[in-house]
Amino acid sequence: MPTKKNNRIIKALLRQPVDTTPVWMMRQAGRYLPEFRQLRAQVPDFMTFCKTPELACEATLQPLNRFDFDAAIIFSDILTVVDALGLNLEFVPAAGPVVHNPVRSFSALQTLSIERALEKLQYVDEAIRLTSRTLQHRVPLIGFAGSPWTVACYMIEGQNEHQFQITRTMLYREPALLHAVLKLLTELTIHYLNAQIAAGAEIIMLFDTWGGLLSSSTYPEFSLYYMKAIGEGIQRTHHAEKIPLIFFTKNAGLWLKSIANAGCDAVGIDWTVDIAKARRMIGATVALQGGLDPMALYGTPQSVRLAVKKILQDFGDSSGHVFNLGHGVDKETPIENVSAMVAAVREFGKKNESVLT
Amino acid sequence: MPTKKNNRIIKALLRQPVDTTPVWMMRQAGRYLPEFRQLRAQVPDFMTFCKTPELACEATLQPLNRFDFDAAIIFSDILTVVDALGLNLEFVPAAGPVVHNPVRSFSALQTLSIERALEKLQYVDEAIRLTSRTLQHRVPLIGFAGSPWTVACYMIEGQNEHQFQITRTMLYREPALLHAVLKLLTELTIHYLNAQIAAGAEIIMLFDTWGGLLSSSTYPEFSLYYMKAIGEGIQRTHHAEKIPLIFFTKNAGLWLKSIANAGCDAVGIDWTVDIAKARRMIGATVALQGGLDPMALYGTPQSVRLAVKKILQDFGDSSGHVFNLGHGVDKETPIENVSAMVAAVREFGKKNESVLT
Repeated sequence: MPTKKNNRIIKALLRQPVDTTPVWMMRQAGRYLPEFRQLRAQVPDFMTFCKTPELACEATLQPLNRFDFDAAIIFSDILTVVDALGLNLEFVPAAGPVVHNPVRSFSALQTLSIERALEKLQYVDEAIRLTSRTLQHRVPLIGFAGSPWTVACYMIEGQNEHQFQITRTMLYREPALLHAVLKLLTELTIHYLNAQIAAGAEIIMLFDTWGGLLSSSTYPEFSLYYMKAIGEGIQRTHHAEKIPLIFFTKNAGLWLKSIANAGCDAVGIDWTVDIAKARRMIGATVALQGGLDPMALYGTPQSVRLAVKKILQDFGDSSGHVFNLGHGVDKETPIENVSAMVAAVREFGKKNESVLT
Repeated sequence: MPTKKNNRIIKALLRQPVDTTPVWMMRQAGRYLPEFRQLRAQVPDFMTFCKTPELACEATLQPLNRFDFDAAIIFSDILTVVDALGLNLEFVPAAGPVVHNPVRSFSALQTLSIERALEKLQYVDEAIRLTSRTLQHRVPLIGFAGSPWTVACYMIEGQNEHQFQITRTMLYREPALLHAVLKLLTELTIHYLNAQIAAGAEIIMLFDTWGGLLSSSTYPEFSLYYMKAIGEGIQRTHHAEKIPLIFFTKNAGLWLKSIANAGCDAVGIDWTVDIAKARRMIGATVALQGGLDPMALYGTPQSVRLAVKKILQDFGDSSGHVFNLGHGVDKETPIENVSAMVAAVREFGKKNESVLT
């Protein structure tokens, strides 16, 4: 293994001392970059883009050429598994993802094959291998998947209806069917993430975008339980290196403590969470990642600087913080404000030397 | 004043002893009722329905004929003020509310007149007067408005885009303009609610549906501040009767304490909030209203009964709880499950006699 040139994000996720707070950005490879829009225009549809390792690799690396980020995240989508299950996924411009064959019955569920899905998903491993070779450990590469609940929302609902009423109704009407869907996705996701780790992913993140739609009593049973099962099922080391695991449920500020206790190394926080309060709530058991309001990047470079400063000061001087947005960067975000954000993390993120000794 | 036949909701909102937990349901007058759909079919568009006091009155009373609710809420909409400001509001089937002339500049804002808007809004007062006369204090009548932030979201965005990115962007790009919009809405809403109280509204509720989209640092400044100003600006008594004030911000479980300290009598909680934790968080300073998952009403009467039982037991035996959903009832909710909910509140909501003495 070549020596890592920059592994401060891994250290921070494992709450080891770092020289300065690491930073990356959810959806950092994406539409706010003109070079990404140019690359994206080379293929007609989004899934073809994901399925072409050369394009996924180039998209993954693009933000690193512009910004001093401490991690790369493989260009992919949480819905690759839905596509691989053969449910006829289509990304419709403006409308977003549509699943033409949603799964709403045991009989529909029984036709699905985890094995076939994993075979189809090998393009993600290929993209990771290619990216990993190109990166040469310049920064660690993050692999990811959607949480079973979040992927189930799309798989059952059929479309990105922001309240996911069909899925949330199934929870109360046919909980056994919903659990069967979640179980299948959990098993598939464990294999999927292990393949990503084998291919070179050095950090794993689970995106639970829609867990916050659940209630305080259903979230532990229908989302966190399966995230925990994935954490227990995947390889947590590779070539003797620890693979940090990040859990991110959006709108779960009330449940941070139970998430922190579910077997992850770090908890992602969204922009509604005050990082100082989150720190007090969960103690120093896990690291925190987040949580600048993505909309704050529509301000001025100076307002961005102050917002970054506040979060870093609120977190304090200890390790265990990865600076990030509280959600994906918005597609029309001015690039100079992303630069201002990274510069401010460098300006205010320095740790006291005492922390390093 | 005739004696109220049932004022236990007022007592509970003021944390006075009650015989049993009062119950009503957000959007209890609405599309899940076949008799409402029939009434609604009499006029072509939604705003005409709102503007016809006889229809609004009948819709308000319909759920009381079916269910043993402890309150009526005037049939209206939080966007009446947007319509009255002349911004060309249209309720487009499937798409929801569209504001054809959104306000995104100081010059657009300056053309608006609070006085003209209040004149146009008199149909709401008329509906309240008519309903109040017909109700004869059988149960108290709730008047309401949207919070300035939530109304501004529609007024600025122009459409119900669930992330309200234009509005949230304005917050960072042109905060002074957003504050000017919020200030105008605050002033208008104070007059609007005072007129509702004068017409017979006995409880006032502020709906802040989109406050939870704000960050921990922007919510106090851009939403709660203006809700507090409304609480300070409106009449809190009428004919020597106290008018309880309820603040409800959806997805604000992290901020319940600051909401409780903002001058309301009761805080509405959504379904993501554990009511026992909320009680501990805010102490006994204000009452709580909520927070059954509206989707729980898609279960069976028995599962509904157990969910209701859990919330009532979690809250405990003290006064200061109004049972409700954590959000509006969904339009396809089975009516028998609403009956099961009310029956369960009666079954498990009884207070120990010691509380009454």
